[in-house]
Formats: sequence, C-alpha cells, structure tokens
Amino acid sequence: MRPFQRRIMEVKARAPGKIILSGEHAVVHGSTAVASSIDLYTYVSLRFPTPSDNDDALRLQLKDVGLEFSWPIGRIKEALSEKDIPNSSVPTSCSIESLRSLAALVDELKIPEAKIGLGAGVLAFLWLYSSIQGYKPATVVITSELPLGSGLGSSAALCVALSAALLSFSDSVNLDLSHQGWLTFGESELELLNKWAFEGEKIIHGKPSGIDNTVATYGNMIKFKSGSLTRIKTNMTLKMLITNTKVGRNTKALVAGVSERTLRHPEAMASVFSAVDSISTELATIIQSPAPDDLSLTEKESKIEELMEMNQGLLQCMGVSHASIETVLRTTLKYKLASKLTGAGGGGCVLTLLPTLLSGTVVDKVTSELESCGFHCLTAAIGGNGVEICFGDSS
Amino acid sequence: MRPFQRRIMEVKARAPGKIILSGEHAVVHGSTAVASSIDLYTYVSLRFPTPSDNDDALRLQLKDVGLEFSWPIGRIKEALSEKDIPNSSVPTSCSIESLRSLAALVDELKIPEAKIGLGAGVLAFLWLYSSIQGYKPATVVITSELPLGSGLGSSAALCVALSAALLSFSDSVNLDLSHQGWLTFGESELELLNKWAFEGEKIIHGKPSGIDNTVATYGNMIKFKSGSLTRIKTNMTLKMLITNTKVGRNTKALVAGVSERTLRHPEAMASVFSAVDSISTELATIIQSPAPDDLSLTEKESKIEELMEMNQGLLQCMGVSHASIETVLRTTLKYKLASKLTGAGGGGCVLTLLPTLLSGTVVDKVTSELESCGFHCLTAAIGGNGVEICFGDSS
Repeated sequence: MRPFQRRIMEVKARAPGKIILSGEHAVVHGSTAVASSIDLYTYVSLRFPTPSDNDDALRLQLKDVGLEFSWPIGRIKEALSEKDIPNSSVPTSCSIESLRSLAALVDELKIPEAKIGLGAGVLAFLWLYSSIQGYKPATVVITSELPLGSGLGSSAALCVALSAALLSFSDSVNLDLSHQGWLTFGESELELLNKWAFEGEKIIHGKPSGIDNTVATYGNMIKFKSGSLTRIKTNMTLKMLITNTKVGRNTKALVAGVSERTLRHPEAMASVFSAVDSISTELATIIQSPAPDDLSLTEKESKIEELMEMNQGLLQCMGVSHASIETVLRTTLKYKLASKLTGAGGGGCVLTLLPTLLSGTVVDKVTSELESCGFHCLTAAIGGNGVEICFGDSS
Repeated sequence: MRPFQRRIMEVKARAPGKIILSGEHAVVHGSTAVASSIDLYTYVSLRFPTPSDNDDALRLQLKDVGLEFSWPIGRIKEALSEKDIPNSSVPTSCSIESLRSLAALVDELKIPEAKIGLGAGVLAFLWLYSSIQGYKPATVVITSELPLGSGLGSSAALCVALSAALLSFSDSVNLDLSHQGWLTFGESELELLNKWAFEGEKIIHGKPSGIDNTVATYGNMIKFKSGSLTRIKTNMTLKMLITNTKVGRNTKALVAGVSERTLRHPEAMASVFSAVDSISTELATIIQSPAPDDLSLTEKESKIEELMEMNQGLLQCMGVSHASIETVLRTTLKYKLASKLTGAGGGGCVLTLLPTLLSGTVVDKVTSELESCGFHCLTAAIGGNGVEICFGDSS
C-alpha cells in the first residue's frame, strides 16, 4: 500500500456515455460504424472507511434509483473461490462458479421487480470490486446522467468509471494524487482499465462488442469495422439532441430480423450495407478534417445532416425503425433538423444534430414538442474526453 | 372512308393509369424500375355528327371539371400550316409553329385560373385530333377515374384513349366493328397508337419517359432500365390502396435533388441505386413466377411487402419523402400494411399492398382513417388490360 493512501481515502471517477453516429446493424454485416462519446456521464465515488469508522461492510448506493445494498466483506470473500486471488494488473473473466456464487448474493437483495435489470450491474460491480480491490470495506456511490438500457452505453460507463475508481487505489496505476480537478490516465493505464471494464460488460451483456467501453475509456470517437476498432479524433464540436423514446426494445430480435431480411434479399441488402459503409467512411473523413472557418463548419454540418438522413433511410430499409422513432423524425423535420435512430432501433434513442448557428429558442421549442409526446430529451456535445478521476481529501 | 362508318358514328375508348411499383428516381441513375397498369381509367368518347346535325364544330367536353370548349373546324385548319396534312399512319411531332398556333387557340378559351394546367392537355387533344382525323366536326367527351397530376399517368391515359378513339375511325386500323363490348387492338395497331400517344405526351410533358403511355397502351406491367422497356406479364392479382396525399410537388426539383445528392455522395448513392435495382429485379421475378397455391400467394405478398418497405427506406435515403407520405406510412403500419410512395415523391401518391386475405373491414378502417387526414383513397387491381375500345351504334 502506498503511503499517501493513508491520507487520501476517496476518489471520484466519471466515464461518458456513447452514441452510434452511423453504421449500427450494418456493422454486423461488415460495414464501418462510427461511435462517439457524449458529455453525459456516469459517476462512481469510492470511499474507504477510516479505522475509526469501524466498518467492515462493502456498501453500494445507486442514488438515481434510491437503492442501497451492503454486504459484510467476509461474505464476499466466502462467495469467491480461493482461485480468485485479486490481481488488479491482470483483467480476469468471472468464472461460471464465481458468477453463480455472486448471483446468490445478489438474489438475497431485495431489488424491486421493476428494477430487477439492475441485478447484472450489481454482479459486475461485485466482480470488479473484489478482483481489483480484494476484500476491503468501502462505500461506492453511483449516479448517472445516462438513462439506463436506452443504448447510450450506461452499463459501459459504469464499468469504466468503476474500474477507474478501483484501479486508482491499486498498485497497477500511478497517478499524481496532488492534481486538482479532473485527471486523465496514461495510455497503458487506460488499456488496463478498458480491459477490466470489458470484463464487467461481459457479465452484464454476455457478448459485448467492446465498443461502448472503449468509447467510455478513451472518449472522442471510434471507427469500427469487422471487429477492429480505430480511435479517431474529431476536429469539430458537434451538439446533438438525444431523444429517448422510452420504448423498450429487444436488441437481439432486431439484429436477427436484419439478418433474416439479408437471407431473403441478399443482393439488395449487400448494397444497403455497402451504402452504410460509404456513409460511415465519409462521416469519419468530415469529422477528422482540419478545423474549419465558420462557413465551412456550416457546410460540414449540412453534410453530416444529409448523411444522417441517408443512414436513417437505410435503417428503415433494414426494418429497424419504429413508430416512436418516426414521430421524432417528423417533429424535428418541422424545424428542418435532421435525425436518425442510434443503436438498435425499434424504439430507444434518436439523434438530432443541433447546428452551431441554431438558436436556443428553436432547441427549446423542439424539445418541448418532443417531450409533450412523452419522450425525454437530453442535449449533449459529442466527441469529448473519456474516463477521468478526481481525488477528494477525506483525511 | 370505309362504308360502315356511315352507320357507326360513335366509339368509346378507355386506357388505364399506372403506378411505379419500384425504382422511381433510381431509374434515372441506371436502376431497373417496374411500372404497372391499374384498373382506373380515362374514358374518351368520340362521336361524329350526322349530316342532319348540321354541325361544323369540334367540341371537347371535360366532364370531371365541368368544362366544355368548341372550335369552328375551319379555325383549326387555319391554325395549322399546310405542311400538316393529316396522316394517321405516321405519328408526327407537333412543330414549334403548329404548337404556337394551337396555343393561340387555347389561350382564347376561358380556362379558369385554377384549372390552367388543363391547357397542355387541350393542346395535345387538338394536335392528335387534327393529325389523325383531319378537319372534321366531332364531339369528344372525356371522363376519368384518375386524379390529375398526381403521378398516376392521367395524361398518358388521356393521350392513349384519345389516340385509340381517333385511330379506330381511321384507315390505319382494322377492327371488327361488330364486336360487342370492350375490344382490344392488334399488336401493330397498338404500336402505332402508342407512338401517337407519345406525341401527345411530348406536348404535355416536354420530355416524357414513354413509360406511362406504354403501360396505358399495353396494360400489364413493364420493366424499364436505361431507356429500354420490357413488357412483363404478372401471374398474380395484386390489389393496392392508392392514397393521394393531394400535396402538389415539383417533379423536376425532386429529380434534381437526387442528382445533387448523388454528386455530393457518389459512392453511397451508387450503392443505394444498386440496392433499388436488386429490389426491382426481385419484384419482377416474383410477379412473373408461375401462379401459386393459396399459401405461396401469401408468401409472395409478404415478400412484395418487404420489398416495398425496403424501397421506401431507400427513397427516404434519396431525400424524396414528405411529411404527408410519412403520415400515410404510419397510419397503414398500424394495420400492419406495407406502403411506399409511388412516382416522384414529395407528396403525390402512396401505395399500400392489400393482401388477398385482408378483411374488407380493415380496408374500410384504414381508408377512413387516411381520409380523415385529408387524403383521398382509391382501390385498384394492378396489372390488368391496356387500352380498349367499344363501338356504339348511333345510326
């Protein structure tokens, strides 16, 4: 244990959510997709009790849903097999036996039926916590600006922020604890952190693509194709209105639906995927092109709007739109704003580009019209920083 | 003049409207499109006065709009140059001078401002009449089940029906006048008639594609690609709900918009057009496949519905949809019916497949819901007969 840990016993980490700018669904069939971070975060604060607190429990507070859980640290140690010796520098998958034991601990919690989906997140928390920090009492508080399960990468943001907080008090990471304000990690530390977060994502999602945790870790944007991720840096600030239709959807069924359509109409769908690939490639080129003067920023935004409209048409061609998404499209179109669904479709979230020169009055109007339809709107800048931490001094 | 003309002095002709089943816009960029006739007709009745009528005027009645025009036959003769010697067997383009002289005649008519668009049709009428029948008095009555200027080929149906009526009293055509009921023309007569109708279409539209008059002449369906038309025969009866949004649109501007988008995003749009080409080809294959049993008819209909939905997504990708079209899509989707715009888009008409097993109650419900939005609905069987004539005995 490093000497300064005696003094600094609290850390706060935040990791951003993500949106898919282009290429969802088509990416499964070999097209390029582009994802971006958004400046909406999940926050994890981790505090170790002082000896005088005389506390030997691991406590988890989920502030947004008003839930609080705690486990005597001994029970967690019992649950995990002796093989599970914590080693923060080696990201390890949760074995089926460990998953079963931890699930038994989660089952004991009184999670309300309506929030039962949180169980997987609690499981991932227990695994990451015990794997990185071992069996130490602590209090972890989680809050988030990201709506859960709406395709904005809330679970990845949680796993990344949690891994960041946990690793910042481990021997695997070397940080300047005297730094004031938000602090970023070094490259190799981000890599380690991203791998741990991916282990958490596996517990929550089964077979995650790794896109969400990579965006939450590194921020900015990534281009991905055939399983390989390339980080790209945007040279322009884009603002998006994100409308959460609150319509739940079955991602697996939507992905399967596109695959079935592809089997029925292989030639047409191959061309559709190829069109999406061109759109993503063009989008990435625009985003990475050198910083423009005011005029060409507007031109770039118009091009991006057109590419979004085109991508949306192609998603409709794949059959993954939804009446709620169409309502958002129609509403924003009235204000001459371009929109597309983001993520799996069939409900979920819709992106609307808010051009730089758009007046705040229009944003207010379109937002209130969308919210009067029962949707929830968020505004976000895209392509910002990835995970960051901030040390509190609780000595 | 043939002897029986002394007795039979009246003929009625009808020609069908058309819909574009797939490939509009993309056809301009080299994709295959499929058009079909619909069982909604424009009717032209032509009656020559008996000597006892003592009438030397050419009269035109447009029943649907309540307009009636007449010209002393001598004035038409004066208007046309001496070069314009009628020859029904040689379809001739209206020269610029003749067009100007006829336009002067039309300008004298008191066509109400709101119906000024009819002027071009009256011009085409005067040209076809004088070219095929020469300078004879007659009364021509026109009625139509097709809404004007909504992309259903009303002008072509007029030109075809008119040419049919005029040619049936010419030396160029040989018909069995004793036939009762609707009668079709022979192959070479249809070819002649189609060419004359195309001359009329040129007066109305400037540069028509020839698709509309070909469908109105031959009926059934045609596949067209890069300017060449192939007649195809459907082996299944398909019923369509045609919703006229009554939103006027600028076809030229819409076509130009797609071309501009293609210049901005050449690769993506090439893939989009290629997807449309595959859809049209697949659609033509399904339509021409041998007559099915009940089950596979349903399967075929499902495939056609899916192809329509895909084509609509691609049209949205090209940027030619419209809020009114989206309203129709959303409304029909509530009843699990697939729709796509037909023709230029930006308003105009929307097709909705009415599957064979769909109950009449559902059709009534969706129709009344669409009409409550201010739209007008028509139901049509597609792929039926082309132009036909019927002789009346007015002796």
